[in-house]
Amino acid sequence: MMIVMKAGATQAEIDSVIHRIQSAGAVAHPSRGEEVTVIGAIGDREHVARLELEGAPGVAQVVPILKPYKLASSQVRAGERTVVDVEGRKIGGEHFSLIAGPCTVESRDQTLTTARTVAAAGASLFRGGAYKPRTSPYAFQGLGQEGLRLLAEAKAETGLPIVTELMDARDLEAVVEVADVIQVGARNMQNYPLLAEVGRAGKPVMIKRGLSSTLEELLMAAEYVLKEGNPNVLLCERGIRTFETAYRFTLDLTAIPVLKELSHLPVIVDPSHAAGRRALVTPLSLAAAAAGADGIIVEVHPNPDEAICDGPQQLYADQFAEYAEQVERAAAVAGKVLASAHA
Amino acid sequence: MMIVMKAGATQAEIDSVIHRIQSAGAVAHPSRGEEVTVIGAIGDREHVARLELEGAPGVAQVVPILKPYKLASSQVRAGERTVVDVEGRKIGGEHFSLIAGPCTVESRDQTLTTARTVAAAGASLFRGGAYKPRTSPYAFQGLGQEGLRLLAEAKAETGLPIVTELMDARDLEAVVEVADVIQVGARNMQNYPLLAEVGRAGKPVMIKRGLSSTLEELLMAAEYVLKEGNPNVLLCERGIRTFETAYRFTLDLTAIPVLKELSHLPVIVDPSHAAGRRALVTPLSLAAAAAGADGIIVEVHPNPDEAICDGPQQLYADQFAEYAEQVERAAAVAGKVLASAHA
Amino acid sequence: MMIVMKAGATQAEIDSVIHRIQSAGAVAHPSRGEEVTVIGAIGDREHVARLELEGAPGVAQVVPILKPYKLASSQVRAGERTVVDVEGRKIGGEHFSLIAGPCTVESRDQTLTTARTVAAAGASLFRGGAYKPRTSPYAFQGLGQEGLRLLAEAKAETGLPIVTELMDARDLEAVVEVADVIQVGARNMQNYPLLAEVGRAGKPVMIKRGLSSTLEELLMAAEYVLKEGNPNVLLCERGIRTFETAYRFTLDLTAIPVLKELSHLPVIVDPSHAAGRRALVTPLSLAAAAAGADGIIVEVHPNPDEAICDGPQQLYADQFAEYAEQVERAAAVAGKVLASAHA
Amino acid sequence: MMIVMKAGATQAEIDSVIHRIQSAGAVAHPSRGEEVTVIGAIGDREHVARLELEGAPGVAQVVPILKPYKLASSQVRAGERTVVDVEGRKIGGEHFSLIAGPCTVESRDQTLTTARTVAAAGASLFRGGAYKPRTSPYAFQGLGQEGLRLLAEAKAETGLPIVTELMDARDLEAVVEVADVIQVGARNMQNYPLLAEVGRAGKPVMIKRGLSSTLEELLMAAEYVLKEGNPNVLLCERGIRTFETAYRFTLDLTAIPVLKELSHLPVIVDPSHAAGRRALVTPLSLAAAAAGADGIIVEVHPNPDEAICDGPQQLYADQFAEYAEQVERAAAVAGKVLASAHA
Repeated sequence: MMIVMKAGATQAEIDSVIHRIQSAGAVAHPSRGEEVTVIGAIGDREHVARLELEGAPGVAQVVPILKPYKLASSQVRAGERTVVDVEGRKIGGEHFSLIAGPCTVESRDQTLTTARTVAAAGASLFRGGAYKPRTSPYAFQGLGQEGLRLLAEAKAETGLPIVTELMDARDLEAVVEVADVIQVGARNMQNYPLLAEVGRAGKPVMIKRGLSSTLEELLMAAEYVLKEGNPNVLLCERGIRTFETAYRFTLDLTAIPVLKELSHLPVIVDPSHAAGRRALVTPLSLAAAAAGADGIIVEVHPNPDEAICDGPQQLYADQFAEYAEQVERAAAVAGKVLASAHA
Repeated sequence: MMIVMKAGATQAEIDSVIHRIQSAGAVAHPSRGEEVTVIGAIGDREHVARLELEGAPGVAQVVPILKPYKLASSQVRAGERTVVDVEGRKIGGEHFSLIAGPCTVESRDQTLTTARTVAAAGASLFRGGAYKPRTSPYAFQGLGQEGLRLLAEAKAETGLPIVTELMDARDLEAVVEVADVIQVGARNMQNYPLLAEVGRAGKPVMIKRGLSSTLEELLMAAEYVLKEGNPNVLLCERGIRTFETAYRFTLDLTAIPVLKELSHLPVIVDPSHAAGRRALVTPLSLAAAAAGADGIIVEVHPNPDEAICDGPQQLYADQFAEYAEQVERAAAVAGKVLASAHA
Repeated sequence: MMIVMKAGATQAEIDSVIHRIQSAGAVAHPSRGEEVTVIGAIGDREHVARLELEGAPGVAQVVPILKPYKLASSQVRAGERTVVDVEGRKIGGEHFSLIAGPCTVESRDQTLTTARTVAAAGASLFRGGAYKPRTSPYAFQGLGQEGLRLLAEAKAETGLPIVTELMDARDLEAVVEVADVIQVGARNMQNYPLLAEVGRAGKPVMIKRGLSSTLEELLMAAEYVLKEGNPNVLLCERGIRTFETAYRFTLDLTAIPVLKELSHLPVIVDPSHAAGRRALVTPLSLAAAAAGADGIIVEVHPNPDEAICDGPQQLYADQFAEYAEQVERAAAVAGKVLASAHA
Repeated sequence: MMIVMKAGATQAEIDSVIHRIQSAGAVAHPSRGEEVTVIGAIGDREHVARLELEGAPGVAQVVPILKPYKLASSQVRAGERTVVDVEGRKIGGEHFSLIAGPCTVESRDQTLTTARTVAAAGASLFRGGAYKPRTSPYAFQGLGQEGLRLLAEAKAETGLPIVTELMDARDLEAVVEVADVIQVGARNMQNYPLLAEVGRAGKPVMIKRGLSSTLEELLMAAEYVLKEGNPNVLLCERGIRTFETAYRFTLDLTAIPVLKELSHLPVIVDPSHAAGRRALVTPLSLAAAAAGADGIIVEVHPNPDEAICDGPQQLYADQFAEYAEQVERAAAVAGKVLASAHA
């Protein structure tokens, strides 16, 4: 950590900062420039992090040098990338995963039809929501346990592993029984008790980036899971909130190469929630795949016009095979191979 | 809800939209302009809300007319404002509340000293965190139950009602025993199971606006609580995330008059977390009070330089009386009277 | 335009709105719902646009129905796409353009070397700045007229048409003499006198999206040029400003499909300025091409480490051929063919 | 400037950075931590600024230490604040200025009526637009020279100095003849040739913050003016662009105390353009004054409902005296005295 003193900082203020660094058990390296003095604080990450010298007398700026996450960082694995194995389907490395399914589990027929369709088109995993976080308390909140049962049936029939969301730590046991990947939604990205719970649950976890979370905060959320001993974390970019109102969210594809620099964890992209409209899903999926994403999680429905939620953004199931084929070609540009169900 | 059709929409597409509106049990009012056709969908709020016509063939735009919240809206109380009574201290209406205390409960001495100081200076309620949401899993996470015990002691001694945060529904019982106002933090603003729980807990609730939540989303979070039968909700603006990096968050004071137009609920402002630096807390507090806020929640510490967390933004306890006096004058400009402890 | 009245609007307020619509020469279509009244204002785009009924007594919301741009809209060309012909190189439609060159013209050698390299690798046009908008008044501001002369020499030798920026209407004559495409920078996107001037200059114009401009504002900027009788406008996405600090700007690739829905004009992407770092330029270029961009404008330098400005984001000239080949493959996924210099 | 090397940076990469710092004429101070090496580059501001080491091999991060502006910085005046004298009216220091007038000069009657009203209520200066930057090329663009003539007449009658906007350097001569303060609009904040021109014009200049400009960029715009020898610059906060759609812009009042820390220049706030609606103008004005702004620039019209532009945000002239009195009280809370016309 570097502490930049104000131009007019007094010697007493400089000494006081040095003293606080030393009291925290770290070593202070002052270097006096012509205009300002900069003090390096070197020592144990945790102690230094607790210094909180911002706003102290004479301090102009505190510049962190080390990243606040450790287990999620590239360094910890010396550049080697994590490949998560989900019931034999590999995510990460050179493997490209297509995770597809309806926004919400609505009925047996809708669930099984979709599962069969995406399995046939080469999807790697099946997604579907049993518990749905809804902005409105009046909106459909998901089928809950009945939804989980239908997902289990879809897996039994197609062999596709299941990705489904956990919203409440009290549902953990029920979700763990069915889910092969536990999804933590964007609105819960900083629900720390929930993150710690899924860290202890022993199943791979996909964490969606919060609507206005920085990449550093996303990696800190991953750190909460990793710290509990669960190494199988997938990061998911799903669009951020900006000033632009022409689309629901702004998909941030720069996050893909940057997360891969900062971390060893696989990066998945969700174009459906970002776009909010079917017509944008294909171009954004191709872009994500070409940019080097490790996978895409996309919504598909046999009859989106009658979907209970998010119909406008769900792909038509009967167009999914063509979509999958295009995405596969885009992933190939980035040197990736689709890790499909029939592989 | 108005459905704006594309310029080139066919009659079949228009008919299909009308048909879907009618199937949902609503009435369709098409009006044909020279360039485009607009179809009004009039009926029950919930049914109309579920239409999801965005992206349907021929549809250019879907414009909601009614607000998605109802219990939180100004209309429901015909312009009358909610005044929340917390153990005899009134929040809302012409009453201005000063809620003060340390970021975190650290020790008996720190807690009681601060409580005595802010009580003497005229604070209305005492705040302090026992459970702390921290970006880093390595940071201090609060004293938990021991922290709650110290808050209870502070109340016993000073008579100040307690505001404290609940992060995990599983801690509800313990928190309810001590808290007079349950705080839901910004990161949990869309933690819907938690909102529903505090809605059922029967204590006033203060909901902090999420870092990138719209006012509409904040009011929808309030709706989750109100829907459970709890009418005592306080809304709290605490800074939003923008492109500006010169300060931690951008305090959005326009939210004050706008929330008061949209809703009958009191609006509190938290300048401490928005600013992140002590030097900005006073000017932002004065601004919030002058803009008509119903109260301020502010952090105070006897020795901020040694605070375990957020030291740089906590006011010095020995400067608090002067601060309170200035804020009182600013609130008077907006026609408000400090509802202080010695009132 | 739809005017949504407040729930409690009086008959007099409704009548007053209707009266103002009629005074403006438009027709009012009121429709009375159970909770609110909505009034359609139908008539000439300009008159209706000037109504300014926001905030009028009893008015809750004013919802524009027609887009404020006309010449830039898809409708005006009935779905046909504009293909801009720049000295025989086609931009738009199925043609993919690679526009490459140094950030700034620094010297004869640097300019000609880069031009030869990118021409050999299949670039369609040559870019280079003679006038540079710099945040700091102390920074290098470009070679000016001498820079233009060097660009002319590069064109003479390689045959590549020239794209260069105009910052000041008073330099128009000099720039027009050399430029085949006049670039209007992001910071000048709403410099309306400049836009009108380039509209009259009779050369194709590339308008970069402002750092926080909506797509609608970008299309309004295009409308300023089109209105002067110049049909050859290229739109350029170059990254927007968001809360994320891990990169300079957030490249908004959703803008590609959406601009193509809204407008008939070609869409170019500038990954260099968005990313600010070389390592991100290739993945973002591939993403843009796969998402259906009509071209990429990218910075290349023979020796970026010694570039006068923006060195860190310029590609190494000796790696450009490989880059071009990859981008060509990504464009093919979106059904586009590189319109290269040797075509 | 501090250069933070990557954890795995080689000695050769470290040496190369040191070499480049030295070649630029600066001194390199490497300090080797356990995990990373940090290199300080100390020397002349301009040389160091041109280093552009971001993205160089082995470099993780480049941290600027010195601010890129100099003449605009607090340091240059050793903490003394600039007070701008406009025809005897003082702006800055303990003086609070109320700058009022119509959005646009529409007619002789409208202009003179408004000028008389605001002068009588104690305004310090008169504002009015003769040249209007409009998003739409079809909108009213201002009366131009005729508008300037009417402003001159208003000044002759009321004695109020004139604030008016310059959009095009080619109109400078005409504007300078009438304006006592030249306004540079938000959309032109980074129009560098225009800034340099007004810097040479010898009249006070008010620069509005761009819609998504950082405070640092605003101060760099001021630096362009100051560098030309013009010391009389006013900074104006007028709302920034955020994700929130409930209001036109988000007024950023944190900018007031922070600009005053960073710079010696006076800070004016424009609540009218930020809010876009009359009902929000008063609370935001009171907030700005209480937060310590040096003045407010506000729009007033004798009959806003018939204003040619921005009617909904203009105050009713007959309510202005009451408004001015309230703002005066809020300014007093911050220790400021209204520098009114009748003082």
